[in-house]
Order: sequence, then structure tokens, then C-alpha cells
Amino acid sequence: MNTLDTAQRCADAMLARDSATRALRISVAVSKPGSASARMEISASMINGHGVCHGGYIFTLADTAFAFACNTYGRVTVAAGATIDFLRSGRQGDFLLAEASERHRGRSNGIYDVTVTNQDGRLIAVFRGRSHSTDAPLIAEDQASL
Amino acid sequence: MNTLDTAQRCADAMLARDSATRALRISVAVSKPGSASARMEISASMINGHGVCHGGYIFTLADTAFAFACNTYGRVTVAAGATIDFLRSGRQGDFLLAEASERHRGRSNGIYDVTVTNQDGRLIAVFRGRSHSTDAPLIAEDQASL
Amino acid sequence: MNTLDTAQRCADAMLARDSATRALRISVAVSKPGSASARMEISASMINGHGVCHGGYIFTLADTAFAFACNTYGRVTVAAGATIDFLRSGRQGDFLLAEASERHRGRSNGIYDVTVTNQDGRLIAVFRGRSHSTDAPLIAEDQASL
Amino acid sequence: MNTLDTAQRCADAMLARDSATRALRISVAVSKPGSASARMEISASMINGHGVCHGGYIFTLADTAFAFACNTYGRVTVAAGATIDFLRSGRQGDFLLAEASERHRGRSNGIYDVTVTNQDGRLIAVFRGRSHSTDAPLIAEDQASL
Repeated sequence: MNTLDTAQRCADAMLARDSATRALRISVAVSKPGSASARMEISASMINGHGVCHGGYIFTLADTAFAFACNTYGRVTVAAGATIDFLRSGRQGDFLLAEASERHRGRSNGIYDVTVTNQDGRLIAVFRGRSHSTDAPLIAEDQASL
Repeated sequence: MNTLDTAQRCADAMLARDSATRALRISVAVSKPGSASARMEISASMINGHGVCHGGYIFTLADTAFAFACNTYGRVTVAAGATIDFLRSGRQGDFLLAEASERHRGRSNGIYDVTVTNQDGRLIAVFRGRSHSTDAPLIAEDQASL
Repeated sequence: MNTLDTAQRCADAMLARDSATRALRISVAVSKPGSASARMEISASMINGHGVCHGGYIFTLADTAFAFACNTYGRVTVAAGATIDFLRSGRQGDFLLAEASERHRGRSNGIYDVTVTNQDGRLIAVFRGRSHSTDAPLIAEDQASL
Repeated sequence: MNTLDTAQRCADAMLARDSATRALRISVAVSKPGSASARMEISASMINGHGVCHGGYIFTLADTAFAFACNTYGRVTVAAGATIDFLRSGRQGDFLLAEASERHRGRSNGIYDVTVTNQDGRLIAVFRGRSHSTDAPLIAEDQASL
């Protein structure tokens, strides 16, 4: 199985059991190993007490892109931590796009950068995630050998 | 109006229009200026593709405690950024508690530390938020002078 | 050997070969496992192009306290990363004190918080370090069994 | 004066009074507004108790590239904070290169990414700095109008 197939199967395996991403109507795409994007519309239920999108949802979108990007190699990989900088507010009805790319991948640790932009291409947030790979397979062996 | 009254009125004003916190059934308490706590149960819709709570919801809970803690002085204060370290997984049905306290408050910037623990008192995540205060009043002047 | 003895021997072992700490005339003290403090005077050679202490030296002092705090258990432990917020400037001749305490210690990872204050007790910076423990012993076995 | 001239004059003005950069024999280059690089050899006095380069010096090099990158617009700009991830150790005699580029520049805040590599092009650390611009001019008005 080539690396792009592995990446796609990993994404499929994760999505199949990912209630959180479904509940938020986030759509995810994996283009190559180490990269992923996630899209989400800011709904009324994401608005905070200042009348803008709760930063938690912007983080969640970025974290989703990060999770799919770092889980493209067939091993269960978890988020160890992240840093986010909020640069502009998100408004109800905005369409946000989070794009994750790999900055570093070591034996068990990785660094992924995510940018979150709105429908006008303006930068909403920058996010940097730190991943930790476990030894657990993310996709079944027989799938991997297809 | 004393500082604790101001803090409580700020929280009330934010909660009244905070759809995000209501939708997640987060309960918030403000004990004194600069401090706040937030509680949330991990629901089925928060579970990610690895079978544990999506880190985005843990961040969102911590970010909520942070937001209420830094908005206790009567001026609209926004999150400029944050760092989170995920230390243990959250499971469906867990009750999480986020407690925010102030590390620094300057003229316009503040630093707030948040710990997230579960129902057994175990540390799930640590979060550090950076706030930026605007000049906009959070509560009406006439309220402030009651 | 009790834990405080181990902590002190670790510090002694590190200091004996630590050229960086000596060159900066940093003095280090370990009070208990997981805690350490470091002191440094801001010298003329630490002043940057804006006439204040280069942030790198404030980080270095905090990082030193962190390194000694996380290396108190007998295993070689390295810094995986850190976040720093600069709150006030340091001036030539200021005496800075960095105090590190443990927020979390897992099997191989730890979180340490460091505050940097000046001679007036004012907060100069807050730092949070992430440590990674290796399996390598920091002090010789025969020392450990004394 | 065009923007590249301004950037270069800012760097010259900072370097002229930067004792810290000189003491560490860091060489700095500004290629365009928002970008800068800094080079440094790891000397014996930078080695810590584990026999590798003290993380503080790696941070200092990255922070220097960041400082010169964000101070290319003619206004005094300071570091508000930074995050660093240490990916590989630096050894005595290594030549490190820090390259800073701008991710975001708002009215008063900016985000700069810095990578630190060694003489073999291997990634030693990634750094993300947050800048705050003041209203103070970095270079004299008459210089700016030359």
C-alpha cells in the first residue's frame, strides 16, 4: 500500500468513529502524508458572550486538521499539546478553513503548523501542535497489506 | 459597587448572551476577581476517532474558565492566545472541572493559568491563556453605579 | 538514599560539568524534588539593541531553574520545549530570581512552571517547560546506594 | 526611503548598541522587511550539565533572529513571548542558523516563525515569537527621510 493510500485509510478509519467531527459538521480532507485540511461553518451555537465565535471552536477546528495530519502513517498518534494565537474574530456564518502541515516528524514526536483562515482568505488564527505516536496500529494489518 | 459584585455582574452579562457555553452545558462560577471555574460532562458527541474526548472540548472548557476569569473587571477582554498540554485522556461521562487563576494583570495584558481535572481529581490538562483588555465596557455604566 | 539527597546529588552532578551556568554566574539551589531556583545578575554583556536585557538571557535563567527542577529524580531529563511570556524588562544590574515548581510528572513527561522576578519582587516573566525523561542514570549507581 | 532600506537601517541601529549579540558572536542579516537570519557557533561556554548546548542559547539565537525580523518597520518592537520546541541537541562546534519569517503583522502585534538548523541542515528547534510594536521610532526621522 503506498503512503497516500495509507494516509487516506487512516483518515477513513478515524472519521468512521469520530462523533465530535460529525457533530460539528467539520469536513476533513487528507491530501498527502502529514497534511490535512478541515472546514467548518460558524453556527449560532458557537457564539460566545462577546458575540463572536468561541475560541474553543476555532481551536477545535485547528486541532482536528492537526489530528488528521499526524495520523497519516498508520500508527495511533495523539495530541500532546498545542499553542494557538487568535488574530481575528470569527463571526456567525463564516466558513473557516484549517490547513495543517508537518514541520517535524521524529521517532515518536511531531510538530504540525495549522493556519485558520476565513472565506475571504484572512488569517483567523495560527496553531502549532505537538504530537506523540504510540505503537498501536490505526488501521488493521490486513487492510495495510491490501 | 465592590470588586466581587463587578466580577459577578460581568459573568452574568457574558452568560446571558453566551450560546456556546449553554450549548455545551458548561456551568460557570466566579469566586473573586481574576478567578473562575467551569464544569462540563463529556458527552457522546465529544468523542473523537480514538475513542476519547476531542482535545478541542478540553481546550474549550479551559478557555471558558479563562474567559470568565479575565472578564471580571468590567472591561471587554478577549483571548489573544493560549497554550495547552494534554496530560490524560477524558472519557465519555467524565465530569471535568477547569479552574482559572490570574498570574499577571498589566494595563492591557494578562496571563491566566487553568488546570483541568476529572471527577477523581486527576489532572487532565494544563492551560495558560493570554488576555487582551479593550476599552469597551462589559457592563452598563448605570449597572456599575448601582 | 532519600529523595532530597538524590535531588541534591543530581544538582551537584549537573553543576560539576555545566559550563553555561558557570559562565553566566548563575547560582542554583534545589530545595526538594521537582523544585529549584536560579539567580543571576544582568550584566552589561546581556543588554540588547533596545537597551534592556536580551530576552534570551531571561529565558536561559528560567530554563536553568527548570532543568535543575526536572533533574532531581536520578534520571537524565531533557527539555522538550517551553513557552515564555515577557512581562517587564530587565535592566543592567538587576538581580533576577527564577523559581521552578512541578505541575505534573508522568512516566516520561513533566510540566514545570517558572516565575522570574527582580530584586523588587516584580514579575519579569512566566515560563512553562515540558520535560522528557530518558532511561539514562544521572548519578552513578554506587553514589545512589551510599 | 524604501522598505528594504528602512529594514537595513533598523538592523544597523539595533546592532550598533547590541552588546548581547556581539558577546555571543552572533552575525545577523536582514533580507527583507519581516525576515532576518542569525548565525552562531556553539562555544565551550554554552555547554550544559548534560554535555550539550544549553537550550537557553538556542532560544537566544532564535530570539535574536525574531527581534531583527520584527524590528524592520522603523518602530521599536519588543518580544511579548515565545514558544520553542527542542528537536535535536546542539554540540560544541556546531554552527547554528536561525531563520525568521513573518506569519502575521497586525496594527501592534505580530507572529514570527523561526527555524534553527545546524551545519548539516538538520532541524534543531522551531520557535514562534509574538511581537508588540510600540509607537517609539527605532531610527531617527532625519535618517528615515534621507
